[in-house]
Amino acid sequence: MTTAPERTADLYPTRGATEVSTPRQDPVVWAMPDGERAKGPIDDAELSGFERNGFLTVDQLITPDEVDVYRAELDRLITDPVIRADERSIIEPTSQDVRSVFEVHKLSEAFAKLVSDPRVVGRAQQILGSEVYVHQSRINVKPGFGASGFYWHSDFETWHAEDGLPNMRTVSVSIALTENYATNGGLMIMPGSHHTFLGCAGATPKDNYKKSLQMQDAGTPSDEALTKLADAHGIRLFTGRAGSATWFDCNCMHGSGDNITPYPRSNVFIVFNSMENQAVEPFAAPVPRPDFIGARPPFVPVR
Amino acid sequence: MTTAPERTADLYPTRGATEVSTPRQDPVVWAMPDGERAKGPIDDAELSGFERNGFLTVDQLITPDEVDVYRAELDRLITDPVIRADERSIIEPTSQDVRSVFEVHKLSEAFAKLVSDPRVVGRAQQILGSEVYVHQSRINVKPGFGASGFYWHSDFETWHAEDGLPNMRTVSVSIALTENYATNGGLMIMPGSHHTFLGCAGATPKDNYKKSLQMQDAGTPSDEALTKLADAHGIRLFTGRAGSATWFDCNCMHGSGDNITPYPRSNVFIVFNSMENQAVEPFAAPVPRPDFIGARPPFVPVR
Repeated sequence: MTTAPERTADLYPTRGATEVSTPRQDPVVWAMPDGERAKGPIDDAELSGFERNGFLTVDQLITPDEVDVYRAELDRLITDPVIRADERSIIEPTSQDVRSVFEVHKLSEAFAKLVSDPRVVGRAQQILGSEVYVHQSRINVKPGFGASGFYWHSDFETWHAEDGLPNMRTVSVSIALTENYATNGGLMIMPGSHHTFLGCAGATPKDNYKKSLQMQDAGTPSDEALTKLADAHGIRLFTGRAGSATWFDCNCMHGSGDNITPYPRSNVFIVFNSMENQAVEPFAAPVPRPDFIGARPPFVPVR
Repeated sequence: MTTAPERTADLYPTRGATEVSTPRQDPVVWAMPDGERAKGPIDDAELSGFERNGFLTVDQLITPDEVDVYRAELDRLITDPVIRADERSIIEPTSQDVRSVFEVHKLSEAFAKLVSDPRVVGRAQQILGSEVYVHQSRINVKPGFGASGFYWHSDFETWHAEDGLPNMRTVSVSIALTENYATNGGLMIMPGSHHTFLGCAGATPKDNYKKSLQMQDAGTPSDEALTKLADAHGIRLFTGRAGSATWFDCNCMHGSGDNITPYPRSNVFIVFNSMENQAVEPFAAPVPRPDFIGARPPFVPVR
């Protein structure tokens, strides 16, 4: 007798005929298997804030000296012609500059070290209540003088539909390597939006990721849904010095405007997924995205 | 004997082979002919601030009830098919919505009344030390969900090059008809930048205005010049309730980012020019722009 492989239940339908709202089915802060909250650098008040708002800011996650090191490493990566030619580099259509480089924890020893730093991975483990692995890492450069932003989206919507993450047990950290002003296209989040999953209308086109890394398209919420969310939750714009960090839940509705100032906005961005929430087949796409964008098995816990 | 008509001196060269900086040749706040400062609603401290920074904010220039009236009038204008078909209406390329309507002080009794209101024209007369006329008026709608912004520019650069304003004796007021948040593409000014004129490189193409109303191109400062100005002066982003106003000098370096929020940013924008600074032939363009964009003779003082 052969038993058919169990199909993972789809808790968060998306990319169907119509836009559909689903209440979050998962905790925001996960308990350890024994029911206790994991110990870590985040205090109880901060953790409650994260649960409620979906984000947590840390004023100086890394020191100014470390910022210098990582900024130099970023400059090295984006100017290296070998890296530029690599499929993991994303080029800005108008300026032809490198806008992002993916999988920096594999391309760079310095960024690998940052990922496994207790200040970083420790917070991820604490929020997700388990060991974690890197679902995605990248450096982003939003140059000045007109770089475009990213339209509103929930990362989980994409990671569920196109990468096969079953549950909302994933957290991102954006560590600023330049100052985030109110004027240079910083991250905007609708606080509390992570409690509702917005399943988007429309099937996923083949190779959607090639387009969506430059400009959001499939998986885009309707004007009506965004108005409702923004009216209910407001919009928070994040500012902060180089070295500051914003942790945010995988299902936060977020985006960013363009940057016409002369001041580039650079950051390193790491997505930690729980080892208890490993990627399966995509829930709403013909094939998974490449593994440099969304990790595929085998998954290696960060230690 | 025939005397050749006197050619007005060009104090502010621009659109030549290279970008060139010229120190401002004119006062910012103008005295009356008798050397006295004009009396008006602006107090001395505010006037000094305007002289130094190039702008002045008024928290509630018009009341909430008046906001309702002018917003209704704006809605009427942008939805009127006759107005939409008029050359004075500017259409957003992507959405095909009306983005601006020019010469609203001629198209609308309500806006004509606003222009001649002592709270409005009184401040312009006080800053410019003379009677004034309307060089340009318009309503602007920056819709939500992705409307693009305006790149950095000095209005005077265009008004001098393309409309023939000889001196910096011109002031603008932007009156908010919706709330200006930090996130919906508000006005950004480099405070103090009005003390230097940045002559831009490159000749003016024919019919430049048709393109530049949708997207800035000729008359655009270099990256180097913008970096120098922003480093020296910083960047101020204006926020405020509906009914608040920002007055700013004609030579302020200013711009705005895009607006991905659901909240449109609408305002009425009036440019007052001194009756002592009437437009002559353009200083760096083959022909003047149409009179609905830059007024041509005869000039009628606002009273």
